This record gives sequence, structure tokens and C-alpha cells, in this order.
Amino acid sequence: MTYCIGMGLDEGLVFVSDSRTNAGIDKIARFEKMRVFENPGERVMVALSAGNLSVTQNALNLLDLRARKDPQAVSLWNVGSMFEAARLLGDAMREVREYDEKYLREQNIDVSASFILGGQIAGETPRLFLVYSEGNFIEALNDTPYFQIGEIKYGKPILDRMIQRGSSLEAGVKCALISFDATIRSNLSVGAPIDLLIYRADSLRVETRERLMEDDPYLARINREWDEGLHRVFDSLPAHDW
Amino acid sequence: MTYCIGMGLDEGLVFVSDSRTNAGIDKIARFEKMRVFENPGERVMVALSAGNLSVTQNALNLLDLRARKDPQAVSLWNVGSMFEAARLLGDAMREVREYDEKYLREQNIDVSASFILGGQIAGETPRLFLVYSEGNFIEALNDTPYFQIGEIKYGKPILDRMIQRGSSLEAGVKCALISFDATIRSNLSVGAPIDLLIYRADSLRVETRERLMEDDPYLARINREWDEGLHRVFDSLPAHDW
Repeated sequence: MTYCIGMGLDEGLVFVSDSRTNAGIDKIARFEKMRVFENPGERVMVALSAGNLSVTQNALNLLDLRARKDPQAVSLWNVGSMFEAARLLGDAMREVREYDEKYLREQNIDVSASFILGGQIAGETPRLFLVYSEGNFIEALNDTPYFQIGEIKYGKPILDRMIQRGSSLEAGVKCALISFDATIRSNLSVGAPIDLLIYRADSLRVETRERLMEDDPYLARINREWDEGLHRVFDSLPAHDW
Repeated sequence: MTYCIGMGLDEGLVFVSDSRTNAGIDKIARFEKMRVFENPGERVMVALSAGNLSVTQNALNLLDLRARKDPQAVSLWNVGSMFEAARLLGDAMREVREYDEKYLREQNIDVSASFILGGQIAGETPRLFLVYSEGNFIEALNDTPYFQIGEIKYGKPILDRMIQRGSSLEAGVKCALISFDATIRSNLSVGAPIDLLIYRADSLRVETRERLMEDDPYLARINREWDEGLHRVFDSLPAHDW
């Protein structure tokens, strides 16, 4: 399983992903699910992936291969808009699925996969997309400024409570990490390390990218303080008078 | 969809269920999902149901019909243990599924269903069971003193944080209602009124059974205070120093 969050806030974008994959409970490995495409001063794109790892990896690898083979061809490095980038990624995923799906389905292997793709290209504002398994995609707008992929339910209520478009990057990061804590507690197949990337609007470069290990002091501190705070609030709630 | 929680605490049992059913987004109705079997001073049983409504209703109706036709026959009214009650319920569900399943599957209708069954029979301690769609069942023990059925994920993290076997009935009710709030916010097909039943261990009667409407003042108050408290705790958490 996987859990990834992408947020599109006025101040910029926040991306958080776990790094656990599993094919059965005894086949757990660590794979980064965050891929960054950066040409400082000109474009930054971040792709988070969930679902069948061969599908998501190969879609990105296909785009990468073609861009290296022919730098003039249309690629994530030269499209003029994030919309075109999302379409490229969706098309690449369709191509991989068409190539592999028949063989995977024969073994009842789930071929579904999805991406969160966000970033900024000079001349545009920062944008955030969710690319579905079928290759179509939607863009985050004001009402719901975030996307989740993977094991999304446990960590959704806190995002709905706390995050609006106008939330600060700082609040976005805090909330994403709390959402991860709820998910990691409830689903063994989501796990640290947690990859975190914060993109400040119009900076056109990645300033903050971190890998938070399981014993990361900041992570431990907010998880502990959140838990203590929740218990305090819970205890202070009035009892029902039956 | 549905959401139901049953808790087995040292002080007694807590049952909470929503009352919305839907067969498609434009076919929403209100059905109570809590069924009570009470013989004051001798036994109290509460069944919460999720899944295919015809399967769960008919399983209960079947048990009811047979008990009325022949009061001497084995029924929920005369079995000597909650274990036997859970088995009766599981068997009744199997019977209904065998009777109907072929016709439902032809229309791709989901026949899965499940029950939480809890209560106490004189001579036993209070017990809580989860009856699966296949008719087999498990009992709540110390490590995990609650069961959920239906739309379980949104409201699970708060239960895991707050509820242990030794939690008070009061805490159990508060936590269940908060868990409902998170679920109702996230899934339109779970909705008020909320049925609440609190069973105090060894009382062998139902003392508290309430239907909380959408505008119930207690519900509104704890939801508001919980939300405000969460925001307070959230704001007080330290920011990450990037």
C-alpha cells in the first residue's frame, strides 16, 4: 500500500509520500514514491505515485527515456504548461498499461495506479493534478486544495478539518504529517521513511526536500503533542446526561 | 452505506448506528440498523447491521418468525450463551444468502452483510461479537474492545487513540459520536439520526436508548467543541524548521 498527499496552497505546494511497498505481507520493500523534475529558475515538477509499482515506474521511465533520446521531443522538460505535463504522464501510463495489462490480468494482478502531479513552469502559477488509473486527470481548485492517493481514508478527516487554500505552507506540512500518523497507525503497509517536499510559489526551485526517518525528532514531537492534545480535548468534552 | 460501532468495555457495552441506506445516490432512505432483544432481568441483545439490507433484515426476521411460531425452539430468546446467539445469527444469514444469492448475483447486486451482536444473558458476562458475511464470527477481547462495520476507516483512528477496555461508558459514548462525526463529514451516505444504546454490565435491561437527530444539542456541542479543540491543538504544534 501507499499513502501520498499533494496540497495546492496559496503559498505554494506541499508533497508528502511514504516509501513502503508490499506484494503480500511478507514481501515488503522500500521504494521512494516521489520523483522530482527540476530545472532551477524555469520549472519544478513533482510526481507522487500509488498503485502498481511497475506501471508507475515505467510510465515515468518511459518519459525519461524519450526525453534523453531526443531532447527536442515533447517532454516534461519542455512542455509549456502543467496541463500538458499531466497529459503526458497520463498518456505514458496508458501506454504502459496497454503493453503489460494482458499479462498481469492473467495472474489477477491489479494494474491500477495513479499519480499526483504538481509543480510550476515559468509563466504559470503553481498547479496540482490528480492523474487517474485510466490516464484522465483533474486539477485541484479552491474548494478542495489537496489530493490523496493510496490508503486515503484514515487520514482524510484531519485534512478536511484543517486545510484550506489559504492555509500556510507550515500548516500544510503539520497537517500532512498528522494525517500520515493516523494512516501509519491504522495500516501496516504504509510506513516511514516519509518524503517531504515543500515548494514555495514562484521560487521555481526546490528549496526543501527531506526524508523523515521513523525516529525523526520533529515527527516524534508533533505526533506526541498531537496525541496528548487530543486526549486533553477529549477529556474536556461534556458527558452525555443519560 | 452504513456505519456502526459496538464497544465492549469493563463497565458495559455501547452501541451506535446510523440510519441511512442507499441504493444509488438518488435512492436514499432511513432505516434503523439497531435491533434490540430484551427480556428484562434475564437477557439483553443488540444487533447492528451493515451491508445488503434485505439480507440483514431477513436474517433477523427469520429468527423472529421461528421464535414466534414455536417458543420452545432454539432462538435468541432462549439460548444460554451469547456464543450460541452469534451462531444462530450467522446461520440465519447463511440461510438467507443461500435462498437469495443466485438471483442477486445475476444482477451484480452485492449480497455481503455483517452484524455486530452484543449483550448479556444471565449467568454470563457481557459479550460482543462480529458476525461476518459468511456467517462465521469473532469475539471482542481485551486488545481490541470494539468492532466497526460499514464505512469504518474515517472513524477508526480516534477509536484506536481513545478506547481501551477500561474506558468508561461515558468516554465510549463520546468517542463513538466523534468517530461518527468524522465519518459523516467524509461519506455522504452515512447520516443522522444516530441510534445510541448504552448497556451497563449486569443490569440485564436497557436503561439508555436514544435517537440523536441531526440537530441534537449534545451532538452539536461535542462536535463543535471537538473541532475547536483540534484547531487549538493543531495551532499549538511546533512548525518544522526547514
